[in-house]
Formats: sequence, C-alpha cells, structure tokens
Amino acid sequence: MISDYKDLTPVQMRHLIREGKFTEPTSGLCPGYAQANLIILRKEHAYDFLLFAQRNPKACPVLEVLDTGSRFTKFVAKDCDIAKDFPKYRIYEKGVCTGEYTDVEQFWSDDLVGFLIGCSFSFESEMIEAGIEMRHNTMGRNVPMYITGIDTVPAGVFSGKMVVSMRPVPPQQVVKAVTVTAQLPKVHGSPIHIGDPSVIGIKDINHPEFGDPVEIKEGEVTMFWPCGVTPQSVVMNVKPDFAITHAPGHMLILDVKNVDLKE
Amino acid sequence: MISDYKDLTPVQMRHLIREGKFTEPTSGLCPGYAQANLIILRKEHAYDFLLFAQRNPKACPVLEVLDTGSRFTKFVAKDCDIAKDFPKYRIYEKGVCTGEYTDVEQFWSDDLVGFLIGCSFSFESEMIEAGIEMRHNTMGRNVPMYITGIDTVPAGVFSGKMVVSMRPVPPQQVVKAVTVTAQLPKVHGSPIHIGDPSVIGIKDINHPEFGDPVEIKEGEVTMFWPCGVTPQSVVMNVKPDFAITHAPGHMLILDVKNVDLKE
Repeated sequence: MISDYKDLTPVQMRHLIREGKFTEPTSGLCPGYAQANLIILRKEHAYDFLLFAQRNPKACPVLEVLDTGSRFTKFVAKDCDIAKDFPKYRIYEKGVCTGEYTDVEQFWSDDLVGFLIGCSFSFESEMIEAGIEMRHNTMGRNVPMYITGIDTVPAGVFSGKMVVSMRPVPPQQVVKAVTVTAQLPKVHGSPIHIGDPSVIGIKDINHPEFGDPVEIKEGEVTMFWPCGVTPQSVVMNVKPDFAITHAPGHMLILDVKNVDLKE
Repeated sequence: MISDYKDLTPVQMRHLIREGKFTEPTSGLCPGYAQANLIILRKEHAYDFLLFAQRNPKACPVLEVLDTGSRFTKFVAKDCDIAKDFPKYRIYEKGVCTGEYTDVEQFWSDDLVGFLIGCSFSFESEMIEAGIEMRHNTMGRNVPMYITGIDTVPAGVFSGKMVVSMRPVPPQQVVKAVTVTAQLPKVHGSPIHIGDPSVIGIKDINHPEFGDPVEIKEGEVTMFWPCGVTPQSVVMNVKPDFAITHAPGHMLILDVKNVDLKE
C-alpha cells in the first residue's frame, strides 16, 4: 500500500528503492515532490536527443541532464544514483526491450548520458488537492499510457509518435484539471487532448500500450497528458544500439517540489 | 524613427534588414511579435551549448536550434535567413570580437549550428500596454546591458557571468512589471533582480558593457532581466576558436507572437 510510505522523505524513499525494497509504480508517493522519467543514451546520440527534447517540450520537459558518464544528479536531488534509484528499468537493444531490472549498475559505462524528464505523477497531488480523483491510485494500478498517432517534431536521428497518460475526470472537473496542470509545464503541463480517444489515434482505451487499464465511469471525460514515456516510443522507432529507460510508471522521486518548478 | 516602420509585418521588416536598409537596434519594432538573440557555434560545441542553455533557462531560453549547417529557420519564422536577417552581427575569434557586419554569409560553413534565444525586447510591448515607459525607447537609444557577478551554471566547456538588461521603473509600477513579464518565460520572464545594482555586481549603472546608458529619474527603481547576450559573455570567457552572434540590441524579428510562447 502506498499509504505505508506516507511519512518517508524523497531521500528515504530513494534509499528504500536503491536497496530493492520497493519495486512498484510510484504514483502517490511523496506528495508535492516532482517525479522524473529516464532515458540513458550513448554520448553519440546525446545532442540529437537533447535537441529532440527542446523541440518537444510538452512530451519531454528536461529537468536535468547528467554530465557524460555520471550516475549522480547535481540539481534535482542529492545522494541520488540514477542507475539504482528507480524501482524498475528497461534495457532496449536496437529498439527492442530485452529485459527489466531493478538496478542497472552492471550496464553502466563512461560514455552514457542520463536525461531526467518531468512526469505527470508530479501534479497528481495538486489534482487530488483540487478534489479530482486519480482513478489508477484508487484502483491500486499503474496509470494507463497509450502510443498516439501524434507525430513528435523530429530532431537528428530521433522521431516517432507521442505517448500520453490518461485520467478519466467527471465533466464538471475538466476545466479545473486543465488549469491546475497548466501551471506546471515542467511536468508536462496542460493536457494535449480532452475527450474522444480516436481523435489522437487511440484505438482501444481498454488496452493501453504501457501501464494498466482503469475504469471509466458513465459520463466521465477521458483526459490525455503528454508522457515522458515518449522517448521509449521514439527508441522503439529509431532503434539505437543501446538505451536504458525506467519501466513505465516506475519513476525517480526528486528533492525538488512541484512549486519549485514554477518560475 | 521606429515609428516609420510601424505598419510593417515581421517578414517585411526582415526583408528590409536583409537588403541592408535597416541596421539599428530593433526595440519597438513589430509590437507583440517575439524577437531573438543569436549565437552560432561549430558543431563540436553544439551539445555543450545546448546543455548550457538547458541549465540556464532564464538567461538562455531556446526558441529554435537550426539543423546543423542550415541558415533557414523551420519553426519561429518563414523565409528567414539567420546569416542576413539580423541588422548587425559580431564575429568572435578566441573570445575577442574581431568585427561587426550587417551580413555574415561570407563566414558560413556546413559545420555551424545556429541557436535562437528569447529576447526581452519581446515583452516590451506588453509592458508599454500596461502603462510602463521603456526609457531607452523614449530616448531613442539601445537598452543598457551589464555583465553581472552572477555565475551561470556551467555545462561542458561553457561557463561565465550572466548578462542582464536594465529598465528604470517608477516604484508604483514595479509589481506590474514583474507580473507582466513573469507570464513570458520563453523571452526571459520575470526579473532576476530589483533595486541596488551593486547587489548583482554592477559597479557603474551609467557605464553598461553593451548598449547605451539611460536616464534614471529621481525615485525610480532599476529592474534587471536576464539577457540573451549572456552567450557573448560566455564566449568571451571560454574563447572558442569561432563564434557568430548578433550585435547586442540588433535582434531577429520572428513570426511568432509573444502570446504564442505562453503554454
């Protein structure tokens, strides 16, 4: 239960994760603190990816780029090892996920560059504060994520479709969900789409490509936010020799608060 | 007089500049449209500079990075040649400004990468709309810019002091000047400092390192915004073999409006 961890600080939570004692999705942990997506690429791809993020700021808002070869963050968290402090990782080889791990130290090398990208789990505490239920939390599931038909803006070798997360919201709370999230652009900000999933190329709302399906109650509106799993969709498309990512929903918990990410 | 150009669209203004018929500072031109700073570096320095900009978003908010070797923008303006459409350029060799030109086509090569960075001239029309006088406009001068004692966050080979622009504002309009500009983070956003210039290491307010001094009336408060001339301060510090920048105050006028740069 997420509530078992409610008194832990971000650094305490990261240490628990580092020791392999928590390997679940991180939605609901450390309310008010930002969470981050991960993609690690070889240096030869770092410029193209950083440019890709610059051109796609809603899907890939960069929170920190680590110095080449470094596993340790300098800005968004202290005592934080990106090779150990995510609950679960994925290894991609030539665009294919070849394994999931709770620690990727064994794969580390000095030519790797880690990118931390804002995550919509960050603003869920603000939505809950505003009285909006996070259905995946209530159901004890991972958030549903979908590969859409929306093209990202290409940069160098990188291109591919945008991934979104979905939350069902009662019609009378839709405007509030927009205004609350729009204030936090560094963790994806406002939704990319509201309503009919087919408009953005989602074929079956009950079969997300990542995470778990959630119940959509009669009359509820499906709301979609750009998602930091987009780099994984791009990696699957572009097929670089090697990439490390987090497992969708299994995020890094940062020391910076959502409010710190406002200007 | 700036008012002679008040009916021109951004593309008409750029064409006039391209033909060498306007070589002055661009403050006040095409109100409501964003303006951009320039730095052009060799590809070998592009990753470090893009990372520098990511780590210093208030001084270096990136509006567009052109594809390597390309002089033509794809996102912020159409029919726009960054080697000709700024009124004035500077060439830096090993950190020293070796010349000013109204056209840098002769220096172009396929290994150059152009970065367009937001400019505080963009939000001046919003400040004027809010009733705040832009003293440098009234006096027909370039805005005063200062190299401060504020360290930027280093990235790769790049480091150096932040440059700021200054506008004197009556005390009763200071809050309004903050709130109006804070809404436009892509063109520097809120001020970095309000009041005593010595707090941020400015020794003599009447001798700016770039641009012109302006009158500060009795009781007026000096307000300082991060400035896109910061890359020039960094280039002077880091001394790369070669760089092209705009001449301070002589900006590119974009097709995107300030309102387009809000989320």
